[in-house]
Amino acid sequence: MSHRVMNFFPGPATLPLAALERAREELLDFDGTGMSIMEHSHRGAAYEGVHREALSLLRELIGIGDDHHVLLLQGGARQQFAMLPYNLLPDGATADYVLTGNWSLQARSEAEKLGANARVAASTEAEGFVRVPTQDELDLDPSAAYLHITSNNTLYGTQWATYPDTGDVPLLADMTSDLLSRPLDVSRFAAFYAGAQKNVGPSGVTVVVIRKDLVEKARTDRPAVWRYQSFVDKDSLWNTPPTFAIYMLRNTLAALKEWGGAEGLEKRNREKAELLYGFLDEHGEFFRSPVEKASRSTMNAVFRLPSEDLEKRFVAEAAEKDMVGLKGHRKVGGIRVSMYNAVERAWIERLLEFMSDFKGKHG
Amino acid sequence: MSHRVMNFFPGPATLPLAALERAREELLDFDGTGMSIMEHSHRGAAYEGVHREALSLLRELIGIGDDHHVLLLQGGARQQFAMLPYNLLPDGATADYVLTGNWSLQARSEAEKLGANARVAASTEAEGFVRVPTQDELDLDPSAAYLHITSNNTLYGTQWATYPDTGDVPLLADMTSDLLSRPLDVSRFAAFYAGAQKNVGPSGVTVVVIRKDLVEKARTDRPAVWRYQSFVDKDSLWNTPPTFAIYMLRNTLAALKEWGGAEGLEKRNREKAELLYGFLDEHGEFFRSPVEKASRSTMNAVFRLPSEDLEKRFVAEAAEKDMVGLKGHRKVGGIRVSMYNAVERAWIERLLEFMSDFKGKHG
Repeated sequence: MSHRVMNFFPGPATLPLAALERAREELLDFDGTGMSIMEHSHRGAAYEGVHREALSLLRELIGIGDDHHVLLLQGGARQQFAMLPYNLLPDGATADYVLTGNWSLQARSEAEKLGANARVAASTEAEGFVRVPTQDELDLDPSAAYLHITSNNTLYGTQWATYPDTGDVPLLADMTSDLLSRPLDVSRFAAFYAGAQKNVGPSGVTVVVIRKDLVEKARTDRPAVWRYQSFVDKDSLWNTPPTFAIYMLRNTLAALKEWGGAEGLEKRNREKAELLYGFLDEHGEFFRSPVEKASRSTMNAVFRLPSEDLEKRFVAEAAEKDMVGLKGHRKVGGIRVSMYNAVERAWIERLLEFMSDFKGKHG
Repeated sequence: MSHRVMNFFPGPATLPLAALERAREELLDFDGTGMSIMEHSHRGAAYEGVHREALSLLRELIGIGDDHHVLLLQGGARQQFAMLPYNLLPDGATADYVLTGNWSLQARSEAEKLGANARVAASTEAEGFVRVPTQDELDLDPSAAYLHITSNNTLYGTQWATYPDTGDVPLLADMTSDLLSRPLDVSRFAAFYAGAQKNVGPSGVTVVVIRKDLVEKARTDRPAVWRYQSFVDKDSLWNTPPTFAIYMLRNTLAALKEWGGAEGLEKRNREKAELLYGFLDEHGEFFRSPVEKASRSTMNAVFRLPSEDLEKRFVAEAAEKDMVGLKGHRKVGGIRVSMYNAVERAWIERLLEFMSDFKGKHG
């Protein structure tokens, strides 16, 4: 029995134990082939089976139909920040961005580097990103090539509870930190994408879901490696994929299916979040949550303690009790509890006991 | 004891057993931290130690000094085909390409997609890529921004024995299939790069070595994710790296160091290649090697049998004897024996016994 801690890191993050144990079991000999899955050719049947299972589990668990392609790419969300405008924007086109934190700022910045007119359709920056905008705050440009949002903001602990209505303008979403954490109406999105390393696997593979007509209309005057069409044509086997990361994505998705898929995960994630936010509300004079309630994230809860010194002690004392990864992002400070799919409810309960004790000692 | 076969796949390829066993041993609990290395934050000390060790092992084993940056990127050689011209070519600039096979054709094609004047400085395409050009065949443009070569051609089984002299023109090389297979005079190269999945690790991480002045002079009007400068500034921790692939790169490099580094690997690889090519020369009426002797690759040996039917039988009968991955690339046909760093000399000996028997039965 390996020693295992309670991992609250914001990503890369904890994985289902079953996914890791499966990998360990067959690390030197995958499925009786006498090779590690890492040593298999991406053109062989053994790897291809894993690859296609990962794709079909994504379709099944997220509920993706025939209107969308599912792609497995490299480069993380950052690469999508650039690839989406590089493929989808004609010269001189306008795109709308909703700014709700660091990652949406970065996404817009890449579009601007490509010469796009990247409009701000809404921003909560002036308020310190403590919430996402409401529908009536959106200044939509009906001629925009798309509107881009970040569905969950890891640094600031905010999340869209309901997605914006953009009319006929295609809606794109960076879902890196909440993909498959709850059911999704895929038909609302022209495209969404996620680095796997928070809710669905390890780092090194990016899930991209994109409507077929967007790929068909995309620019052709781009290098093949930066065109969606290349990967669409070959089921993401156009070049050598990150085979082990995709294998771990498969293992993780198989475990998440056992946990009830999107519905089961939403229940699990909601329960964890309700426990934690309930506690914060009860002890708001010591654990101050800056986030507006309607925008609270079920994935990342951020809060402050009465002093930075206490915050340091909190992180250190929690680590002594095997609760790790609780330090807030350097741009925000404070404490951040990341509660992705593989975080156990029991860990949150254990954390609340610790928080209660900590307040008793220092409050 | 796991069942293990003799893996001659062209990449992803066999890995040192010690590198895999190390991974299995600590898959659920890295270095007593209670987490898999996959579950560690890329901003934490545990992962950062692995990351920096991978970088320093690359510097040590390849012999990279202060003139060059070493970067760990994503996207494989394909991404470098585009990233190099995208960063290094001013508008209207000319770059030289030497065409020695499929990958150099692809590299040139990406530069052309970016609007570059990608000249052909030499090509052996008319001869079916059975050799690399000689120095006096090179039609060099002294004003070219760079000259690009593919150091080893996996499909055609050719390799540069000595690298071309390009005068003052920066020399760039795709070394995906022979990085660290032999000692290298790094000072000859402005940049070289390799997907890790043949000689130094699993797929999902790309090693890029680039002279500092090239990065300094590179274009700034590009998205951050496609600029070398972003990764230089943060020691390849600018965004979430493919952490497990880099961990396996580290494990593999540590094993290659035990095997004597570049000098030890050259000896090992030369011995394997001499055994195999010696056998082919002796039995040339049955096993026909199309490659010119001066261009023979120590990494991939290709040969034909008297008929396609015999080639199919060869691959199938070898697989029955636990020798896998011997089928030639679909564009070339025939047999290909890939003999990367982790392929054991004993496997080549075993293969030659099989080839001898096969010829006895069918020759």
